[in-house]
Amino acid sequence: VTDEFTAGRLEPGVIHTFAGGTLDRAAHLRSDGSRIAELLDSESTRFLPFRGLDPLIVAGSPPALGWLPRGDIEGLLEVELAALFVGFEDDAARFAIALPEQECDTPVADGSSFRGVREVAPLLRIPDASLVAMGRSLAAWNATHGHCAQCGSPASMIDAGHARRCTDDSCGAVQFPRTDPVVIMLIHRDGQCLLGRAIRAQRYPPGLHSCLAGYVEPGESIEEAVRRETWEEAGIRIGHVRYHSSQPWPFPSTLMIGCLAEALPGEARVDPAELESVRWFTREELQVAVERWDVDGVLRVPPPLTIAHQLVKAWLAEGSGSDWPRP
Amino acid sequence: VTDEFTAGRLEPGVIHTFAGGTLDRAAHLRSDGSRIAELLDSESTRFLPFRGLDPLIVAGSPPALGWLPRGDIEGLLEVELAALFVGFEDDAARFAIALPEQECDTPVADGSSFRGVREVAPLLRIPDASLVAMGRSLAAWNATHGHCAQCGSPASMIDAGHARRCTDDSCGAVQFPRTDPVVIMLIHRDGQCLLGRAIRAQRYPPGLHSCLAGYVEPGESIEEAVRRETWEEAGIRIGHVRYHSSQPWPFPSTLMIGCLAEALPGEARVDPAELESVRWFTREELQVAVERWDVDGVLRVPPPLTIAHQLVKAWLAEGSGSDWPRP
Repeated sequence: VTDEFTAGRLEPGVIHTFAGGTLDRAAHLRSDGSRIAELLDSESTRFLPFRGLDPLIVAGSPPALGWLPRGDIEGLLEVELAALFVGFEDDAARFAIALPEQECDTPVADGSSFRGVREVAPLLRIPDASLVAMGRSLAAWNATHGHCAQCGSPASMIDAGHARRCTDDSCGAVQFPRTDPVVIMLIHRDGQCLLGRAIRAQRYPPGLHSCLAGYVEPGESIEEAVRRETWEEAGIRIGHVRYHSSQPWPFPSTLMIGCLAEALPGEARVDPAELESVRWFTREELQVAVERWDVDGVLRVPPPLTIAHQLVKAWLAEGSGSDWPRP
Repeated sequence: VTDEFTAGRLEPGVIHTFAGGTLDRAAHLRSDGSRIAELLDSESTRFLPFRGLDPLIVAGSPPALGWLPRGDIEGLLEVELAALFVGFEDDAARFAIALPEQECDTPVADGSSFRGVREVAPLLRIPDASLVAMGRSLAAWNATHGHCAQCGSPASMIDAGHARRCTDDSCGAVQFPRTDPVVIMLIHRDGQCLLGRAIRAQRYPPGLHSCLAGYVEPGESIEEAVRRETWEEAGIRIGHVRYHSSQPWPFPSTLMIGCLAEALPGEARVDPAELESVRWFTREELQVAVERWDVDGVLRVPPPLTIAHQLVKAWLAEGSGSDWPRP
């Protein structure tokens, strides 16, 4: 997260981890088979292998992406490589290479290793984390959409990994990568915030609470999804909703839509199917939790990588008193 | 679109067609098979048939949704009915019924007919249009996802239409309804707006221009998608991006994310693969076009049903001078 304008993006304010890409996606080339074939063969093209969904990373400070030239990936594996065109950076074409998880004994160069995206993303340069997010989401989608949802026949990759077409000509349905919109909301009232602890929290650190969140459903706006989810999960009605910022989240591919949501009067109650607990926290508790996010406690918030963390920080930064300026 | 708070929703400002639902979706009941079975059998439950993706509508002013009791839908068709649970309204459980398009000679009651959603939505009450959007999107998703994308086996409906599970137990993958986030942007500079005419515009009325728009891709935020699409389609760089409002769009199921986007200096150029033309329009031209949206002309804007129309209106309403208040 930075307050600076990212090169070429001119985004004032918040840049979340996984946003802030500087890649030229060159989307018009995806369907140009002969140009893609040329780029795949070019000396200057670079390839980033993902094993399973973990990118190759070169140790360092910061760690770098393990870009390989054509010669190196041919030797890397004997299996068929799925090359996903992600665009151009520094005048070189870039592809993500999706390697099957089974092929995990592949030796890589000293100082390089396949690393989980959650663990490595906070260490990467902002544009590198964004590129990893795009590659991981594309690789995950291709890996789980080998068949046509319409008729069940095998579907083959087209558009350099940005679509898949049914191989049965009588069907021929084309599918595109899926990105699921999710609302995530900082719910506040009278200088306090409502955070919840998910029931899957057995594997969460003690004290971890986060913003409520949920998928946007068919037939509802962002603001309506915020209201429905808050009502379902915590029994609280929401008045004004204000969009704050958004974050691509590559697990496997959601668009996190961050909002500040003003709670109306009423007692919170937990939906036991979703949450272990839900609680109001004071500004002081949140201030401590944001500073000590990596320490267990009565309240622990998610790490800075997450939009939940950034929404709490944004709300704290807006100062006390009335919850925000009314239009 | 209304400035009033919708009952139970407290949404100030803009309510787009297809938003403004008043349904209690009762999502926790979807996976409760015995409760759903009870509701399907209940005297008080009401069913809204969709033929293909067109809802049954009862003529009137406004037209009403063609809700039928259990007895009537059993007689309606002999084929297997897919009942999609949408929630509760007026204390009655509500299901959408997806009828195959082929079964189109079904007689319906006098004064009732299956009508296209684009045509009928502007005539419906706000909550009815929202319910139709939810039902249409759910029906469309179920109709096109009969198979498991992972392994190709048949996938059967679960959770009363809100998920589908692979019937091959060794796979068992579960898929959920898909909602694709799309950015749509009112691009402005020096008191003018940039609108484009799509190349599919052969079937569009003469003069029709609209806001640029495109799918949010993996690994990008809303603001980045606005910048990339505007650059790809019109060769214009964008500075500040401001979220305005969002609209569910049931053709078949997108979430339209409306933004106001400030253009940086530079000449517009058309992407011939996407647009027939792109042009700056003055405030005066837009004012006329919004008032006479149903009349062909040099400039014609989309109908009030669309977020594109509402974004133009919102920008006009903000007044002239500097494009908007800076933070």
